[in-house]
Amino acid sequence: MESKLYYEIPLQVRYYEADPMGVVHHSEYIRYFECCRDSWMDSVGYSIEQCAQDNIVFPVIDISCHYAKSARYGQTLKVTMELKELKSVYVVFHQTVLDPDGNLCAEGDVKVAFINTQLGRIVRCPEKLQKIIDSQLNNQ
Amino acid sequence: MESKLYYEIPLQVRYYEADPMGVVHHSEYIRYFECCRDSWMDSVGYSIEQCAQDNIVFPVIDISCHYAKSARYGQTLKVTMELKELKSVYVVFHQTVLDPDGNLCAEGDVKVAFINTQLGRIVRCPEKLQKIIDSQLNNQ
Amino acid sequence: MESKLYYEIPLQVRYYEADPMGVVHHSEYIRYFECCRDSWMDSVGYSIEQCAQDNIVFPVIDISCHYAKSARYGQTLKVTMELKELKSVYVVFHQTVLDPDGNLCAEGDVKVAFINTQLGRIVRCPEKLQKIIDSQLNNQ
Amino acid sequence: MESKLYYEIPLQVRYYEADPMGVVHHSEYIRYFECCRDSWMDSVGYSIEQCAQDNIVFPVIDISCHYAKSARYGQTLKVTMELKELKSVYVVFHQTVLDPDGNLCAEGDVKVAFINTQLGRIVRCPEKLQKIIDSQLNNQ
Repeated sequence: MESKLYYEIPLQVRYYEADPMGVVHHSEYIRYFECCRDSWMDSVGYSIEQCAQDNIVFPVIDISCHYAKSARYGQTLKVTMELKELKSVYVVFHQTVLDPDGNLCAEGDVKVAFINTQLGRIVRCPEKLQKIIDSQLNNQ
Repeated sequence: MESKLYYEIPLQVRYYEADPMGVVHHSEYIRYFECCRDSWMDSVGYSIEQCAQDNIVFPVIDISCHYAKSARYGQTLKVTMELKELKSVYVVFHQTVLDPDGNLCAEGDVKVAFINTQLGRIVRCPEKLQKIIDSQLNNQ
Repeated sequence: MESKLYYEIPLQVRYYEADPMGVVHHSEYIRYFECCRDSWMDSVGYSIEQCAQDNIVFPVIDISCHYAKSARYGQTLKVTMELKELKSVYVVFHQTVLDPDGNLCAEGDVKVAFINTQLGRIVRCPEKLQKIIDSQLNNQ
Repeated sequence: MESKLYYEIPLQVRYYEADPMGVVHHSEYIRYFECCRDSWMDSVGYSIEQCAQDNIVFPVIDISCHYAKSARYGQTLKVTMELKELKSVYVVFHQTVLDPDGNLCAEGDVKVAFINTQLGRIVRCPEKLQKIIDSQLNNQ
């Protein structure tokens, strides 16, 4: 049986996030992806604010996004993330955005690294986060 | 003769700044105002980055904006600022946004304070900025 | 007894809404205000999408905002609105943003007009909305 | 000799585009890419507003971005685009963002389709745009 790390949030499209075509601007999905990742960090008890206090920040190194169907303002979307790859110095999440009918609006991969702001350089996955991920993988 | 401190910049509306009505979202004008103030700081040789290095940041304390006419994406607007009031612990700028035909799109007042990030509190107008303002007022 | 039309929403600050000072950019509160108004429209069964289908949009005519205390990313804020003034051709909402400890972060007034997109001009408050407001005022 | 379609713009980072790390948020580069493409359309005499009047809009279908070095607020960046692939129903641009020292900040590919808003579906590259691209390729 494959273990998975999966998380999802509801997210209501805001009016100003839609463009003159009346649909969500393509840059906003990139932000929705981040909202989901940050919410997951909250949910596991290690928020990005706490990370910042531990001098850890999470720069995005690579991103890809395929846009399948336009979301519209007022819709409540589902934004998901799933751990795709965990390496010593980066992690890749597969993320999706679904509309209220379950149609895929956008999906992509986000590669995130770990920077220690005190050292000013990329570091290995912080032990605390590594433990959280391990525990999540075993529980699911 | 009244001396004035006045500055203006051209600013091209970006596609994503327009909303489903096809017009610039009302929150963007607040950002355009800031672009003009920051550009003025650049122009007088004391950029907000240099201010940050001097531990000075400029929180907005009060803002008002009257929206007169919608700007549209693709238009190159004129954003202006004029010193309206200079007190020891704050400064008020009157700002406007004009469309390519010179029509007023928005105007408002922005009250900005001075915070010393090392002290963590509001301080008097930094001497360096005070001198710049005095010099500008005398030159115009 | 004074009747009131009041509504509030929780709103979690997103990472990208915070600026290099680590605090919510002043333009974002203007957007938070709108999120609350739009959510209220949803809650009373007349969403802004439905309004758009009825050819009614709600341009902001005047806005003021006093910034009292900086909100930070990760915080879940409370955003409120209260009907302050209802005239035939505009409505004024008093709005606030409170941090998790109940401290006032920002407050201001937002004057909103009614535009019929078919007629292309400002119109009186749509009857449907007027009835909703009346009903809300009598219920509270 | 290979013919190329290349375009670039200067773009000054705005304060609110930087996040609490003090660097440009990763979603903004996606927007900078669009600013460059839209500016190119302006420069060849077929702006996106004119396209919209011709019922043509340009949805982004796929995007990738590699983040190499953080840009900072106040910097004037160079944003570039180069035609990478032109098919009957889409076009791919390779785009980069460079900092003032010429360091690569971000680069990626953007696949854009053509939608006729009257027909409500994806169409072939509009003849007018096709001619512009051909002419640009031959001139360079």
